[in-house]
Amino acid sequence: MLTDMNEVWHHYRAELDEVESQIQRSLDSPVSLINTVGRYVLSSGGKRFRPLLLLISSRLCGCQGKDHIPLASVVEFIHTATLLHDDVIDEAEIRRGKRAARTLWGNQASILVGDFCYAQAICEAIRFNNFEINRLLADTCRRMTEGESLQLASDGDPDLTEEVYLKTIEYKTASLIATACLLGGIVSQATAEKKEALSRFGVKLGMAFQVADDTLDYVAEKEKLGKLLGKDFREGKITLPLLHLLQHCVPEDGNRIRGMLARGEAKEEELRIVLALMDRYGSIAYAIQRAREFVEQAKKELSVFEESVHRRSLCIVADYVVSRDH
Amino acid sequence: MLTDMNEVWHHYRAELDEVESQIQRSLDSPVSLINTVGRYVLSSGGKRFRPLLLLISSRLCGCQGKDHIPLASVVEFIHTATLLHDDVIDEAEIRRGKRAARTLWGNQASILVGDFCYAQAICEAIRFNNFEINRLLADTCRRMTEGESLQLASDGDPDLTEEVYLKTIEYKTASLIATACLLGGIVSQATAEKKEALSRFGVKLGMAFQVADDTLDYVAEKEKLGKLLGKDFREGKITLPLLHLLQHCVPEDGNRIRGMLARGEAKEEELRIVLALMDRYGSIAYAIQRAREFVEQAKKELSVFEESVHRRSLCIVADYVVSRDH
Repeated sequence: MLTDMNEVWHHYRAELDEVESQIQRSLDSPVSLINTVGRYVLSSGGKRFRPLLLLISSRLCGCQGKDHIPLASVVEFIHTATLLHDDVIDEAEIRRGKRAARTLWGNQASILVGDFCYAQAICEAIRFNNFEINRLLADTCRRMTEGESLQLASDGDPDLTEEVYLKTIEYKTASLIATACLLGGIVSQATAEKKEALSRFGVKLGMAFQVADDTLDYVAEKEKLGKLLGKDFREGKITLPLLHLLQHCVPEDGNRIRGMLARGEAKEEELRIVLALMDRYGSIAYAIQRAREFVEQAKKELSVFEESVHRRSLCIVADYVVSRDH
Repeated sequence: MLTDMNEVWHHYRAELDEVESQIQRSLDSPVSLINTVGRYVLSSGGKRFRPLLLLISSRLCGCQGKDHIPLASVVEFIHTATLLHDDVIDEAEIRRGKRAARTLWGNQASILVGDFCYAQAICEAIRFNNFEINRLLADTCRRMTEGESLQLASDGDPDLTEEVYLKTIEYKTASLIATACLLGGIVSQATAEKKEALSRFGVKLGMAFQVADDTLDYVAEKEKLGKLLGKDFREGKITLPLLHLLQHCVPEDGNRIRGMLARGEAKEEELRIVLALMDRYGSIAYAIQRAREFVEQAKKELSVFEESVHRRSLCIVADYVVSRDH
């Protein structure tokens, strides 16, 4: 029986390798800039988390054919497009511990190759000539841009509510993860009940994933996450731990934090103050708890499926997203 | 009988107004940043050139239903997406004589609302559940990013060949114009022969359009084009007039121009030198001639259609694209 994440990766390795070949084939543009930048980004340590979810969901629903392989590549291409654009939006220097594409080839290439990845994903998806798939992917792309726009609009807003924060991460992150899971059900001609369960599982898992990610930003060491501690705070991005802190600290501390956010470009010293306050008010613990609740809700959605190695795998993946700091 | 461009616009005004309503409806996102930026860009003086081509082509092929209206909106959304991203890529301050969206809301909003426009276009298109339409639009989006990438890769390259230049503008500009024309044939269930003729008409028209645009950059006054004289040259973009000059001038002048391109950020004085050289070597006249040749080739493609007010309209549009400086 599978017990940890490494075993899950190992269990689906053969199909993940097929997805990998498909990803490389899909990068075959006659324009060399696209190939160069595309290959760099798509070979720079992405774990293929979304393809994995699609593969497991397909198997869980008894997928017979091979459609899940190109669709897993499609989902990774959409994800990659968002990363390329996010890096420009966030002026990121580093991505997954390596230099971001924009620092090597410029913002322009990063925007264009992002556009290419979106278009290529849609080109590949459309080949299935399946209305449900087309509709789902197009809606997901739109939803993600709405999520990113919500985030941009709330940047630096100390009065951001948890409700708007949760909606933002649902749109920008959970929607694609839910789509990856749902696609597994669609290609396997699963029942509506099972497809809905997979979609809800994916939403909850995606919420857990993003809350955990936002929390790790305040706790992870550079080596582990491939990025700077407190990066979100430095950029004025309000995420769950800070949101909790702002809502629970005494007014004096709240005003200090609001001052830092208003000035922007928080200094190391200011970050230390915020980290100490988060520790005092239990903000990190709160966020981790919220992420765990989402994981539990996600796993409950799987009750519609019989026990199997695939259902077990999805549960291991769910537990993994809130234990990435170990 | 229609005789000029104003009459053409007038003739299709009722349907253009329907397209306009559709465009406004399609902008209805729950995210206010998207609505604000989207409405600004989509109401800032775009002529709806591509929707017009789609409407005329539909009528030319005897279109019966109403599918051409939302499809015309789809094409305008794709065009708008490219403008929003282009402005970030070119660091443009001005678009159509007004401040570019990025100067008002920042690069971030411009990238995201561009992404939204692409996604929204695909969402609308997919409703038709028509493989030919889906395939065409997805391929066109990919082709356009390839064209923009080719252009980016050749920026500032004084050895750019006319062949690569023509391929670049075919991909980045002519492909969407051809798609607008072809969609008119598709929604009207035109014969393969007619659809191919419309597509080839659109490619040639698009080539003429871009060559004329690139030439206007060296001749138009600010008031007329809504942008600075010699903007492309200042940005190191090599277009047909400069390409001609580089290939025909004496080595001494060629080296001077190469020096300016290598230094970048050409000064007013340097631009004057280039303009004088273009005058001496007939580079502007050459480019205008090339644009006119494309227009003639475009019009020839229409011979498969019977004479009608719609065929006449397409010819007027074709002539218009090379007379925009009058």
